[in-house]
Formats: sequence, structure tokens, C-alpha cells
Amino acid sequence: MENDHDNYAQAGDLIQLTSPNKKNHFLQLSVGGKLQTHRGTIHFENIIGKPWGSEILTHTGSTYYLLNPSIHDLLLEIPRNTQIMYPKDIGFVLIRMGIGEGQTVLEAGSGSGALTTALAWAVGSIGKVISYEIRPEMLNLVRKNLERLNLADRVLLKLQNIDEGFEERNIDAIFLDVHNAYDFIHHVRNSLKPGGHFGCIMPTTNQVTRLIETLRQYTFVLIDVCEIMLRYYKPVPGRLRPTDRMVAHTGYLIFARMGITANQSAS
Amino acid sequence: MENDHDNYAQAGDLIQLTSPNKKNHFLQLSVGGKLQTHRGTIHFENIIGKPWGSEILTHTGSTYYLLNPSIHDLLLEIPRNTQIMYPKDIGFVLIRMGIGEGQTVLEAGSGSGALTTALAWAVGSIGKVISYEIRPEMLNLVRKNLERLNLADRVLLKLQNIDEGFEERNIDAIFLDVHNAYDFIHHVRNSLKPGGHFGCIMPTTNQVTRLIETLRQYTFVLIDVCEIMLRYYKPVPGRLRPTDRMVAHTGYLIFARMGITANQSAS
Amino acid sequence: MENDHDNYAQAGDLIQLTSPNKKNHFLQLSVGGKLQTHRGTIHFENIIGKPWGSEILTHTGSTYYLLNPSIHDLLLEIPRNTQIMYPKDIGFVLIRMGIGEGQTVLEAGSGSGALTTALAWAVGSIGKVISYEIRPEMLNLVRKNLERLNLADRVLLKLQNIDEGFEERNIDAIFLDVHNAYDFIHHVRNSLKPGGHFGCIMPTTNQVTRLIETLRQYTFVLIDVCEIMLRYYKPVPGRLRPTDRMVAHTGYLIFARMGITANQSAS
Amino acid sequence: MENDHDNYAQAGDLIQLTSPNKKNHFLQLSVGGKLQTHRGTIHFENIIGKPWGSEILTHTGSTYYLLNPSIHDLLLEIPRNTQIMYPKDIGFVLIRMGIGEGQTVLEAGSGSGALTTALAWAVGSIGKVISYEIRPEMLNLVRKNLERLNLADRVLLKLQNIDEGFEERNIDAIFLDVHNAYDFIHHVRNSLKPGGHFGCIMPTTNQVTRLIETLRQYTFVLIDVCEIMLRYYKPVPGRLRPTDRMVAHTGYLIFARMGITANQSAS
Repeated sequence: MENDHDNYAQAGDLIQLTSPNKKNHFLQLSVGGKLQTHRGTIHFENIIGKPWGSEILTHTGSTYYLLNPSIHDLLLEIPRNTQIMYPKDIGFVLIRMGIGEGQTVLEAGSGSGALTTALAWAVGSIGKVISYEIRPEMLNLVRKNLERLNLADRVLLKLQNIDEGFEERNIDAIFLDVHNAYDFIHHVRNSLKPGGHFGCIMPTTNQVTRLIETLRQYTFVLIDVCEIMLRYYKPVPGRLRPTDRMVAHTGYLIFARMGITANQSAS
Repeated sequence: MENDHDNYAQAGDLIQLTSPNKKNHFLQLSVGGKLQTHRGTIHFENIIGKPWGSEILTHTGSTYYLLNPSIHDLLLEIPRNTQIMYPKDIGFVLIRMGIGEGQTVLEAGSGSGALTTALAWAVGSIGKVISYEIRPEMLNLVRKNLERLNLADRVLLKLQNIDEGFEERNIDAIFLDVHNAYDFIHHVRNSLKPGGHFGCIMPTTNQVTRLIETLRQYTFVLIDVCEIMLRYYKPVPGRLRPTDRMVAHTGYLIFARMGITANQSAS
Repeated sequence: MENDHDNYAQAGDLIQLTSPNKKNHFLQLSVGGKLQTHRGTIHFENIIGKPWGSEILTHTGSTYYLLNPSIHDLLLEIPRNTQIMYPKDIGFVLIRMGIGEGQTVLEAGSGSGALTTALAWAVGSIGKVISYEIRPEMLNLVRKNLERLNLADRVLLKLQNIDEGFEERNIDAIFLDVHNAYDFIHHVRNSLKPGGHFGCIMPTTNQVTRLIETLRQYTFVLIDVCEIMLRYYKPVPGRLRPTDRMVAHTGYLIFARMGITANQSAS
Repeated sequence: MENDHDNYAQAGDLIQLTSPNKKNHFLQLSVGGKLQTHRGTIHFENIIGKPWGSEILTHTGSTYYLLNPSIHDLLLEIPRNTQIMYPKDIGFVLIRMGIGEGQTVLEAGSGSGALTTALAWAVGSIGKVISYEIRPEMLNLVRKNLERLNLADRVLLKLQNIDEGFEERNIDAIFLDVHNAYDFIHHVRNSLKPGGHFGCIMPTTNQVTRLIETLRQYTFVLIDVCEIMLRYYKPVPGRLRPTDRMVAHTGYLIFARMGITANQSAS
């Protein structure tokens, strides 16, 4: 049991303590440590060796659940110094752009690193993520988060602007999360492999309009624009109903494939 | 170039030919073969050796794009003998339940195999999917699709009902897509690892109500119910607007973690 | 009973026959007449004198319901030679712009007359609607529909373009349903009463952007942009769930009040 | 100008002062009065005689707009001692149930009076609203609000529970906003005119399920269940985008017509 990190929380593990109303604490389990919550104190000696999923009581008797951190909750936990991408968008981006095991993907900018983390998770141990960011403090944050999740070795963080383009070539998928993504589409074209996946998130319709124009100009094809709305329900059996409020908008998602026209192909 | 399947379409490759209005054809590229579309014929000799993303013209001059098949489009392509899960839901399920490289996940039933395919894709080459289904004809369909995508060796297809439960233990995540999922929650509990992820899709509110009740009864915690709405836009730069119609509902998604109460834990 | 049009269908009445799956027929009840449906024939002699709400059987035994026509269903029934406004939008427009009994409202263009009809209904017997339209065939359609509903005397239909503006002054509320509404905002200003309500529906984001700019330029205040989504459910008690598909978009609604800046006011 | 309440704010008028970010103050204009806002003081002497729509500056120079109160804003302003109905729902209810000039409509319960107010507004000077409510303090609130808007003479407020049904007969439309609406459907049937309109709002799916069952049992036909989602946009020309958050749910709307089966009709 001592080495069975899969079933039991062990010293050194990154754990998630979640209250019944879904407030999360993420922390590294240490011998002798404790967590102070506004609902009471939890001593780690009461956690170590417990199976994942266990109800943990604070000294005042409040309930927390001991969980093996989920990528979903970890993404929501990322400090929002800047606007972060939400799991609802990230999940769709991954499957829409086919970002899976062994792929090489590139993003700019790293931002708070929510997408960076998800990409690193998705490409697996033999995949690679390259992430450009110009704000050193953001990049440090991203690095720390990746290290905490043992994902750092899959990611090349580059403190570099993208005005001159990306140094990499033959990339499977490129995702831009920068306000003026339309200014870098020719660079995307240079770095994507033929037929490769382009994706982008933009908050305003005006940006989307301009991006579509530019994508067309640079022979990107099968352009799609969409938005994803996620509505939660109150999970009360006899009174099932949506929550009162919801996120109305995170951003528009834009996808395209790098195309080669019959003319380009012939030449 | 001949062996560069990554950049150029080669004989034997599974390819995707997509029209500008996004109608897809999936087929295996063969020497001497051809595709008849209602917009003209495409001879494969005009495709072999072309870079992915190339515009391919039919004999009448209509455009198709030559693409390395995307998992997203493959999922949408799966024959709908029965209701299939959509990428909008699948993408969220994967990230919500943390289904990634190396995991062992179980689903019932296989249905048309859209989720089976996505799970196999997501768990990577070292992961494992176990899928229960009682209709042999469905299972055959799923097997064929997995084989076409070289994912069959990651999936154990079981022609077996789940009334007596699942034979597997210590599973990372279990997803049920059966109309009476609430009848199998005790079996889910036996087969999930502590703290493991449970997920389900159900079309009606009445099913959801009953499922939540049962999940609570069997000490599942952090129950969430949600729905995902995906709205596409017409990607015309000067006239950006949503499409006229959209999918209003596929199903409610229900998620929970397998919990262990303080009492259970103590015993 | 013979004269009780309120409770019983009488010869001469405009009636609505609706099937259980909500297909509507609107017609004028005549002695000796009949309706041929693809589910059988209904002889009007079996209708005259029946209370509203009655189940009416065709000669093959299929059910229809005899209804006093509802404004909602009448609006949906209007022939769609052009894009019509939907009740979901119209209902909100009426209450948002305060269009009620005794008001004088102006619209351009009449289009198929869905909004015209609703406005005429809403302003009541002492209110007034002025409606501009440049296509004579549309205007005829609108006139016929208004006459059928006894609303024609509340509406002034003008076969006239609005390039030179509106001849009316001191209007309570003006609604534009023309693709280039932004070209007429100065005319709107001349015809609205101070603080009056402006409304507009536009399908694309680009139009909305341009309209907002123009409204600001002409000192319209409290500008609001919104969209309304209506989702129906299948009303089956044990299997309550949304319909499979829905209208994703009709148009963006834009509202504003005619403002007078402190400077303008002082002068 | 002194008597032109239509164009100029006069002493005694109910006015609306709205800030550019759409915070409303409703008040009666009095000679010598003033309004204290957290953005400065407005002296009424600076308002009286001003045209509606005028920009009014506080003593600190902050802007408010002087408006003739809109029914929409008045509805949103109603004190929320209890859950109120929103204009998005009310607008649709009015047009869906055909509630217009001269109709007699009944509702229970009055609640905070948002719907009561809207119904009184919609039926016009010759229409009638009957509203049942069992909480005297709520009824007082509703009465005050109606008096303020000069709508009180259109409404009969009844401090009475509805267990024994409604005393009125031959009503055009009945709307229930009570948690157990399904317990009163037989009473609704007794009080509606044949073919009359029934409407209801309910927050949970479980209530809706039960209501549909009961409506069917009591021969209501053409049952519809729907929900309305309203999403606002930030009206910034160059950066048009939805607001960050929105109301996810107010309630499900249920509509039906009172039917008479062929059997009932024959007897």
C-alpha cells in the first residue's frame, strides 16, 4: 500500500481536497503538514495512506474529499492573472485539432498556461509542446505549474515575441491566443505541416472577422467559427434545474486547415 | 517523399476528401482507384504524392481538399445506426474525466463506437479501453472502425451484458451510455478505483434525476450535471453570423467521483 | 350561442385547426365549406357551433383542435417570402420598447408583415402603426394579412423608400428591419420624440458594429445589443428533454433611447 | 410646454434617471426635491421642463439620462422579495398567450407583481386582470406598484388561496406562478373559456414533468414547454462581444390550450 500512489494518497503526492460545494485546494502532501481552511484544519497525518475518494473531516467536522487531482480541476485552478481558457473550450480544441499522443504542437502566447498544461497532458510522454510568451513573469508561472504536474519536460517555453515568426517547422497544430492573431498567419503557414491544424480563440466578433479574412488570404481552408456554451445544473434529484447564472462568453473558437491551392500545388 | 506519410498522401493511407462546404469522404488510397462524387470524379493517381491540404479538382473542376483524417471528422463520420456522441460532448468528457495517456477506461455500451474510438485515441498506445455491448452487429461495426484507424489493439470489445457487472477492477474511469445507467451504479462502484471518475450521458431529465439519486445512494461525490451547446457561425468575413439552425440537445452529461465516507473509511 | 363568437365557432369566423403535432391551418369558416388535409377531410358543418378547443375528427378519424386563432400562431403562419421576425424576438421587442395601448409606432420595412401585425395588435384600437415598404407586392401581402385580422385600420402602409426620411414626427418608438439601418439613424432622430425608443434587428455582427457606431454619433443613449434563444422541449412526462434541433439565430436585437446631451439641451 | 408630459418632464411625473452603465433610479418629480446618488446630487429644478432623453449632470458632473419610465425597466426594478419574472419571459408569455387589449386574464400568485404589472399594461384600459395571492405583504407591494403606474384600476387583487379554485369563469388566459401548479389544473379548467390559454413558469424539470402529466389528464392540448435565454453584448463598436456572464435559468415556460375531446363534446 505504501507505494500504491494509484489507490492511496502518499507523502509527496500532489493532492486535491474538495468541499461538497466544490471548492478545491491543491497541495503537496507532506509528513506533519496541515491545511487551514475557513471550515477547519486538516492534519495530513489523517490523509496519508487513505484511499483516494475518502471523506476527510476537518477538526470542526466539515467534510472534504481527498482526490487524485483531475486535469479539469487543475486547469480551473490556474491563477487568472490574465484571461484563461476554460476546459469547455480546451476539450473541444484538443479533439477538434486532433491533439493527441506523440504530436508536436505550438502555441502563442502561453498566458497563464491553462492551454499549455492541457496540450502537454494531451500529447503524452512522446509528444512536444512549444510555447511562445513575451512576459517573463507569465512564463515563470507556467513553468512552475508544469513542474508541479510533472509535465515540464514535454514543453519548450520560449521567452520570445512572434513578430519574426516561429523557428519551428512542420508542426502538427498551432494555436494562437493573442489579440492580434491575424498579424501572424503568414508565420503560421511557414511553420505548419501541409494540411496542419490551426486554431485560435478571440473574444470579439471584430477580431474574428479580421482573422477569417486573413486566413482566406493565406489559403487556409475549411475555416470554422464556433462558440461553446456550458450550462451546469443543480444536481438535486427532486429539483433538477440549471444554475441561476453561467458564463455567457469566453471567446469564439476559430479553426482551419492549411491548404494548398491547385495552382500552388502545380508550381 | 515516398515514405513521408506525414506530409504526402501515399497509397494505402486513409484519407479525407472534404468539399468547401464541408462534406467529407473517407477512403483508403489505392493505386488506380477513384472516387465518384456528385460533383465529379477524382482519380487517385492525381492524389498520390500530393501534400496534405492540397486542393484536388474533380474532372468537372469542383474542389475537394485532401486531408490527413482528423479524429473530429472521423467521429462525425461514424454511421449513426444509433444515437452517437458528438465531439462537443466527447471533448469535454475526456478532459473532465482526465482520460489521457496510459489510462484504463471502461465504457458500456459501445453503441456506434464514437466514444470508443475517442477513448482509444485518448489513452494512447499504452492505455486500454474495455467496451461492453450486447448487440453483435454494433460491436462488429465498432471493431471495423477501430481497425480502420489502427486503434483496435487498444480496445477490448466484450459482447456481454452488464447485468452481472463488469469483470474488471481498479479502473480509472467508467462511462455509461445506456438508458438505465442508474441500474448499474453498484457495479460501477465495484470496478472503479477509489476516487475514480464516473461519467454518463442521458437524453432526458427524468433519467438524470434518477441517476443522481442512485449516485448519492452509492456514495458517489462531487456530482455534476451539465450540458454543452455548440453554435457554429457562417465564416464570411463581412457577414459574420451564427448559422440558422443548430443541435439543441444531445444529452445531459453527468459526472461524479467515487467517494468513501468517513464511516466506510474507518471500517 | 349563435352570436357567442367568444365561446363557439361561427360561420364567418377566422379559425385555426391544429393537429396534435402542431401543424396549423387557418381559414374562414363558411357554411357548406370543407378542409382537405393529408390526414382526411373536415366538413365545416361539423365545426360550426362547436366550442373553441373542441377536438374535430377528419373523415378518417384523425384529430384536429378547433381554436380561436392566437396571435403567436398567426405570426408564425405569415408567408415567408422574406425573412420574418419570430415571436421570441417580437415579444421582447414589444415589452423592451414599451409598445402598448395608444402608442404611435413606426417601422421600416414592412417585410412580410409579422412585426407590423404584432405592432398593430399591441397598440390597440386607439394606437397607430406607420409602416414603410418599397416592394408593392410585400405591401399587398401585409395589407391582406392585416385585413384578415381586422387590424388594417390601425396601420398606415406607405409604399415609399426612406432615403429622405420619415414624414412623421414625435413618434413613440421606431423599429428598423432593413439591412442598412445605420444609414437612416439621422432620420430616426428627426422623427422620434425626445427619449423615444429605437429598435432594430440585424443578422450579422458587422452590421451591429456599424449601427452602434452610428447610434453613438447621433447621440442615442443606453444602447443595448442582445440575442434571444428559444429552446423547446418534447412535452412527454416521463421523458422530458429538449428537442433535437432549434433555431440558432434569427438576428441581433439592438435598442437605444434618443438622448439629448447637456450641450444640446443648453442650446 | 408646461402640460406636455409627453415631451418634457413635469412636476408630479414618475421619472427614470439612468446612468450610462444602466443603473436606474425611479422617482416622482417634485418641486424642490433632489436625488442623492453615489455619483453626486441631482436637483429636480434642473430636471423640470427638460425634454425626455436629456443628459442630466450631478453636482460632480456625472451623467444621468432623464427618461420617461419604460415598462421593461420598471419590471426589472420591482423589489425582489421573491423570485420575479423577467421581461424576456414576460414578453414571450404575452404574445404566446395572446394577452392584449380588452382581455380578461387571471394569475396566481401575484408574487412581487412583475407579471401582474405587465398583464395590466398589456390588457389596456378596457381589459381586466385578476390576481390571487395569499401573502398580504406581497399584495400590498403589488398594489403600491400598480398605483404608482396608474394601473391599479385594471387589476383585482384577491387575498385568497386557490385551493377551492377561482371564483371567475370564462377567462381568456390563466397564468400560474406557484410551485405546485399541477394541483390546480382542474380549477383552471373550470375558469378558462373553451380553447383558452394556460401558461405557467416552473424552475425545476420535476415540476414540469408533473405538470405535463396533469395537463394531459385534464384534456389540455397543444402543450408546449420551452425556455428562453437572453444574452447581452457589450455595445462597443470595435469590440463587439457577449457579456462575460448571463442569467442561465429563470424557469421553464409551459403553455397549453383548454381542449374538449370528441367524447366530451358529444355529451
